[in-house]
Amino acid sequence: MQNRVTTLFGIQYPIVQAGMVWNSGWKLASASSNAGILGLIGAGSMYPEVLRTHIRNCKKATSKPFGVNIPLLYPHIEALMDIIVEEGVTIVFTSAGNPKTWTSWLQNHHITVVHVVSSLKFALKAQDAGVDAIVAEGFEAGGHNGRDETTTLTLIPMLRAQVKVPLLAAGGIATGNAMMAVMALGADGVQIGSRFVASTESSAHEAFKQAVVLAKEGDTQLTLKELAPVRLLKNKFYEELQALYKTAPSTEKLKAFLGRARAKRGMFEGDLEQGELEIGQISGLIATIEPVSAIVAAIITEFKACQTRLSKLNLNTKNDH
Amino acid sequence: MQNRVTTLFGIQYPIVQAGMVWNSGWKLASASSNAGILGLIGAGSMYPEVLRTHIRNCKKATSKPFGVNIPLLYPHIEALMDIIVEEGVTIVFTSAGNPKTWTSWLQNHHITVVHVVSSLKFALKAQDAGVDAIVAEGFEAGGHNGRDETTTLTLIPMLRAQVKVPLLAAGGIATGNAMMAVMALGADGVQIGSRFVASTESSAHEAFKQAVVLAKEGDTQLTLKELAPVRLLKNKFYEELQALYKTAPSTEKLKAFLGRARAKRGMFEGDLEQGELEIGQISGLIATIEPVSAIVAAIITEFKACQTRLSKLNLNTKNDH
Repeated sequence: MQNRVTTLFGIQYPIVQAGMVWNSGWKLASASSNAGILGLIGAGSMYPEVLRTHIRNCKKATSKPFGVNIPLLYPHIEALMDIIVEEGVTIVFTSAGNPKTWTSWLQNHHITVVHVVSSLKFALKAQDAGVDAIVAEGFEAGGHNGRDETTTLTLIPMLRAQVKVPLLAAGGIATGNAMMAVMALGADGVQIGSRFVASTESSAHEAFKQAVVLAKEGDTQLTLKELAPVRLLKNKFYEELQALYKTAPSTEKLKAFLGRARAKRGMFEGDLEQGELEIGQISGLIATIEPVSAIVAAIITEFKACQTRLSKLNLNTKNDH
Repeated sequence: MQNRVTTLFGIQYPIVQAGMVWNSGWKLASASSNAGILGLIGAGSMYPEVLRTHIRNCKKATSKPFGVNIPLLYPHIEALMDIIVEEGVTIVFTSAGNPKTWTSWLQNHHITVVHVVSSLKFALKAQDAGVDAIVAEGFEAGGHNGRDETTTLTLIPMLRAQVKVPLLAAGGIATGNAMMAVMALGADGVQIGSRFVASTESSAHEAFKQAVVLAKEGDTQLTLKELAPVRLLKNKFYEELQALYKTAPSTEKLKAFLGRARAKRGMFEGDLEQGELEIGQISGLIATIEPVSAIVAAIITEFKACQTRLSKLNLNTKNDH
């Protein structure tokens, strides 16, 4: 499929494997790129020199294009950006910050820049900042999320009407049917997160992968809205948080309760009780842990079957019965 | 288009105009049925004898099938059900209550029964109760809403995997593209609410219709979760509610603040400041007030154009570039 997204990144399918803290190192990114989609290393959970190692390993493991996702609120952002340039990374996805700050600098270093947004307002800001493409992420997405709570189904057409650059849909997409759905809404491609958490190559702890596979409809919730909204799997930590909420806690109390390194503890170290388990609503549909190549093949097969099925729908506009 | 939904209701297009309190009387329902979709009278805001009048007027205004939406928590439910049977209504959509209570009784009176749900658990309960079809309504929908906060994009495929009866998607659907999107996910048809609020024939107050047209992305919010979650347009009443929330109010205080008849005041009487303005997220995409016939024609035209566009997508699975 040749479209604006495949051309922009030089990939076979208009699919991006989301850069996710604690889940997406060089193994996942290179497996994704080797499967014909765009793999992303998630730099948000890496010290600068750890990122350098991941980039180098990724280059050894694939000759295909790959990228790095960088949350712009990262404390050592300058160090990360220098490594990006030094190591010859050609694609950067930025999120959680002002796209004006780094976009031109990166583009001046011949890097393609994509910014992740959760609302129309931020999409237009990103477009004004000159980004090469936009990822629009709906309320159902795992991890950190927007304050407007706009869902993918409503966000994509509202952005499509005003955004000129290539638009990738994210949040709630784990299958070929959902990929077709968002392309019906006007997306040029998709970014998929949760399904790749439950892949053989993700760096998620095995216990977290199993928890994703076992998750059912209604098992995730967007919470911690007073700090930064985050969607996570409901567990003991979440239940304790709900108990705390009943006491109308200050943000200081919330921060103290949250503490540090909960995300690492949950997703990377496998503490299912006290860790923060960031995952999307669509985890309720994910039933297996498979290699990335099998996941991509299944998505493409389903996408084609969906296309055939939809092409046979025949709206009866002649006979009024 | 002949499918399970058009056959079940005897309609031309697999589209249902949602039954909505204060918005959908006989004028909207009959206009919808005359346009080839299923029109619904929303009984939730009507006294029993008012409903009887609406049913009689609807029968005079259309020879096509139409139905009535009944929230099962309605206080005079027996009186409503008797009127449904006495007036020969053939299709009933039930919501907000246990589908076991009335489904068999209605079906014994040769009435087709559809139940509205917001989660997989309730969908399976409705199927067990023997309903003829299910409407699955996502988090983005206007008005009263589920506690799981599952979006349409994630809810439909999770239900499709386990629900055998015809499945209609609701929440976030106002266009032919969105109709195609949910059919890609496995829905047999759609229920559309917000777009019909902004129709010439809806009984919404003109000021409310204008507010819907002016709404932008991020202008609605799901709130009042302690009582019954409801999605509404943010207005002065909503802002005052947020101020109250900061005091950690009891549910009694919330109820007292809410008072009575806020929905009527906002949607029917046009008090945009103190009324409750129930509308979906997709209001951000609705830009005009049109007759129902024009809305349906536009949806069908867009659906067909979308089908043509999607049929041309060609996944390049042979050449690995």
